[in-house]
Amino acid sequence: MSNPFFKNNGPLKLSEIIKFLKLNNHVINYDQDINDIKDLLSSKQNDITFFHSKKYVDFAKKTKASFCITNEVLKNELSKSCTAIIVDNVLVSTSQVTSLFYPDSTDDDFDETVNIINETKFKSKVSYGKNVLIGKNVSIGSDCKIGHNTIIEKNVVIGDNCSIGSNNIVRNTLIKNNVKILDNCVIGKHGFGFFPNKNKNIRYPHIGIVLIEDNCEIGCGATIDRGSMSNTIIGKNTYLDNQIHVAHNVQIGENSIIAGQVGIAGSSIIGNNVKIGGQAGISGHLKIGNNVEIGGGSGVIKDIPDGMKVMGYPAKNIRGFLRDNK
Amino acid sequence: MSNPFFKNNGPLKLSEIIKFLKLNNHVINYDQDINDIKDLLSSKQNDITFFHSKKYVDFAKKTKASFCITNEVLKNELSKSCTAIIVDNVLVSTSQVTSLFYPDSTDDDFDETVNIINETKFKSKVSYGKNVLIGKNVSIGSDCKIGHNTIIEKNVVIGDNCSIGSNNIVRNTLIKNNVKILDNCVIGKHGFGFFPNKNKNIRYPHIGIVLIEDNCEIGCGATIDRGSMSNTIIGKNTYLDNQIHVAHNVQIGENSIIAGQVGIAGSSIIGNNVKIGGQAGISGHLKIGNNVEIGGGSGVIKDIPDGMKVMGYPAKNIRGFLRDNK
Amino acid sequence: MSNPFFKNNGPLKLSEIIKFLKLNNHVINYDQDINDIKDLLSSKQNDITFFHSKKYVDFAKKTKASFCITNEVLKNELSKSCTAIIVDNVLVSTSQVTSLFYPDSTDDDFDETVNIINETKFKSKVSYGKNVLIGKNVSIGSDCKIGHNTIIEKNVVIGDNCSIGSNNIVRNTLIKNNVKILDNCVIGKHGFGFFPNKNKNIRYPHIGIVLIEDNCEIGCGATIDRGSMSNTIIGKNTYLDNQIHVAHNVQIGENSIIAGQVGIAGSSIIGNNVKIGGQAGISGHLKIGNNVEIGGGSGVIKDIPDGMKVMGYPAKNIRGFLRDNK
Repeated sequence: MSNPFFKNNGPLKLSEIIKFLKLNNHVINYDQDINDIKDLLSSKQNDITFFHSKKYVDFAKKTKASFCITNEVLKNELSKSCTAIIVDNVLVSTSQVTSLFYPDSTDDDFDETVNIINETKFKSKVSYGKNVLIGKNVSIGSDCKIGHNTIIEKNVVIGDNCSIGSNNIVRNTLIKNNVKILDNCVIGKHGFGFFPNKNKNIRYPHIGIVLIEDNCEIGCGATIDRGSMSNTIIGKNTYLDNQIHVAHNVQIGENSIIAGQVGIAGSSIIGNNVKIGGQAGISGHLKIGNNVEIGGGSGVIKDIPDGMKVMGYPAKNIRGFLRDNK
Repeated sequence: MSNPFFKNNGPLKLSEIIKFLKLNNHVINYDQDINDIKDLLSSKQNDITFFHSKKYVDFAKKTKASFCITNEVLKNELSKSCTAIIVDNVLVSTSQVTSLFYPDSTDDDFDETVNIINETKFKSKVSYGKNVLIGKNVSIGSDCKIGHNTIIEKNVVIGDNCSIGSNNIVRNTLIKNNVKILDNCVIGKHGFGFFPNKNKNIRYPHIGIVLIEDNCEIGCGATIDRGSMSNTIIGKNTYLDNQIHVAHNVQIGENSIIAGQVGIAGSSIIGNNVKIGGQAGISGHLKIGNNVEIGGGSGVIKDIPDGMKVMGYPAKNIRGFLRDNK
Repeated sequence: MSNPFFKNNGPLKLSEIIKFLKLNNHVINYDQDINDIKDLLSSKQNDITFFHSKKYVDFAKKTKASFCITNEVLKNELSKSCTAIIVDNVLVSTSQVTSLFYPDSTDDDFDETVNIINETKFKSKVSYGKNVLIGKNVSIGSDCKIGHNTIIEKNVVIGDNCSIGSNNIVRNTLIKNNVKILDNCVIGKHGFGFFPNKNKNIRYPHIGIVLIEDNCEIGCGATIDRGSMSNTIIGKNTYLDNQIHVAHNVQIGENSIIAGQVGIAGSSIIGNNVKIGGQAGISGHLKIGNNVEIGGGSGVIKDIPDGMKVMGYPAKNIRGFLRDNK
């Protein structure tokens, strides 16, 4: 919920939201201003939030939001100061309201705001190649290099001493210092998130960013998607080899090493000092501890505690894997 | 066999074909005109066809083709109106004759016919980025966007309201309406099809196209190869995540969802409402039914009936997979 | 050690090397000139070499190098004509000294030396697309094509009759004759090699090249990394499908066929006439014999002898795999 880039369209009238959701008259304070949409924990008074799963009952009881998109079953768990807005599908409605507040966060058409770099203020500050394009709302630190044909689209902050290679596309991304991004990457596009709907799926907004911490290296051909409601994060001094896919909301810790063609599905959290072998895959919504080692080709489908070494599909203790496969 | 793009060089004299195949005098109507090369079913009188496997005996008995490339074993199964042309290797000879009719379908060198878009008729019709190139025989509907550095090579039809991102290469492709293609894709190149031959493999022609139906989304870094003798098809409202490879002649149905880094080998047919998890692979020439779910990381090596949920390598019933791997 | 491209900074004074490694006064010939750093076998008098593992004892006994970076345990195995330079971590120190001799081999920032092709001598010799860039120290044979937006960076030799597609980046690469490189590839960047170091990993130099022999085809989206101390080699008439990753120091033999999304980890050696199915992965430092067949999706974690057919993860005899998975 901390995207510094997408403009919040709020405050919006509650009436506007109710109308947009095609709901009936079950709300009272119809003219009230709503400032923002946030999750249960971070929302404040005059915000709207959402509550779609029992997992979050504790947060629901404490939320400071004035309104909450939820369903008949969950509404009674809400904080008394919070008025329930009952809908059929909480996530679909949340998605719709989010795109009302952040209309630019749903679609990723090409950035029409870019200019050729030598027509921008970066002309004398950055070392750049041919055909480099820079969008609006971009900031670049000192001693940076940007290679040929790379497109820094709108909403990008790059720190000091970074080397961005050629043929990259970067948007909605915050890059710290001493980061290297090699070639042919796409960083910061919306994630593969939508509500399946016959004939025409409904895409949900991605108001998160990609955050790449100090001293990282991102290999060729990487795709790192920005978060939906939170951010996608690559921790300090973590190195990614070629052709890696990091889905939306993934968080990778510090000093981790990820070999070629690895894929990490949405919302998984990877610890510090983790080593992942080539072509391994990690399912979504998992928690991989610190100092974990995952063998090449593994398919990880459940959480892994700190310090464990795993291999296989599904991944299990590496000793067991090697013993069973002698 | 329905490629609207490749120019048919025919009619060709039968004598020319026989000579090209370096065959001897075993054919009578030496001066006859041959219009086209097609498969057993779709060929007509004065076409040449090919018959290389017993699987197709029923079609061979009914073919309307005047000539058929085949071998000594199969020739007796042919319709009486069809004259056999006996060769050592049916597929190699078929490939050679196809490239005689369609000389442009074998090699995919870069398209020299392209122009910068603002020197074309699309200048005022399309919303486009920097350095967009458009080849010959291209048609683009209304309300389309084409991002920076994208190359629409020759033989491409794009419908209405499509968003093509940046750094894409598209050729020999028919894109319907409301389609989104994100960034860094290569769509419509020839498939990985050739006859292995010591020192110098023999590539076979790809006269098919890629057909992308309404409302599809194609993620970043996709490679979708065009068909060899039939088309590669992505059905309506099917969404592909990043880094997916779809090989030649693959057909994917409607409303399917395919996660990151999936690979689908040549000529496999995927049904409607199919969900495929990240990094799964599907072998060639398989039939995956409707409403099938394939778990992430699976390796599918045989047909899957409608409605089945599978996981594993090789993929099997998901309940069995999870039970065996507790 | 046979890179024709990287300039050797030598001879360097031994004193300079000792100082750079922050070592003390345990060497006598302090002012001696050192010409080059090479491995135990190929180094000559007045070269420096390195010795980090008992595996190489036989070579150490015979080395002609005047000096050797090694440790207390191994130093006694060295040829008597060779003076040991004792360090804490042999590979880290070797890496540091290599980058002293070859300062350009460590980082792969974008190539600032390139020019647009129509401002170079290749203007009239090569058939080229829009926005093609050519670096220093490039040679291109006759009848070559280079597609749109492709960047041939410094240190590239291309033979006759090659077709390089669009959106490629090539550097430190030697391409023989009749080679086809399709689109969106990155060839010749440094490998994923570094010494993990908290907060800031230490990258080691890559002074090898990529060598692509006659008649090869490289599919779209390939990443082929150059070698560190030796070369990465793709043998004659070997075909690679789309989205393949070939890591540093890998050697692939002749007439091999490698399907889509395969990954081959560092320093593995693949024989002639090898077939590898889609999405298979091969671990590092393995030896795959001639005429081997590896099934799609396999994970190969040990050597495979000539002529064997394997499948599975870990890969084993294909008959066993299919029997166990009926």
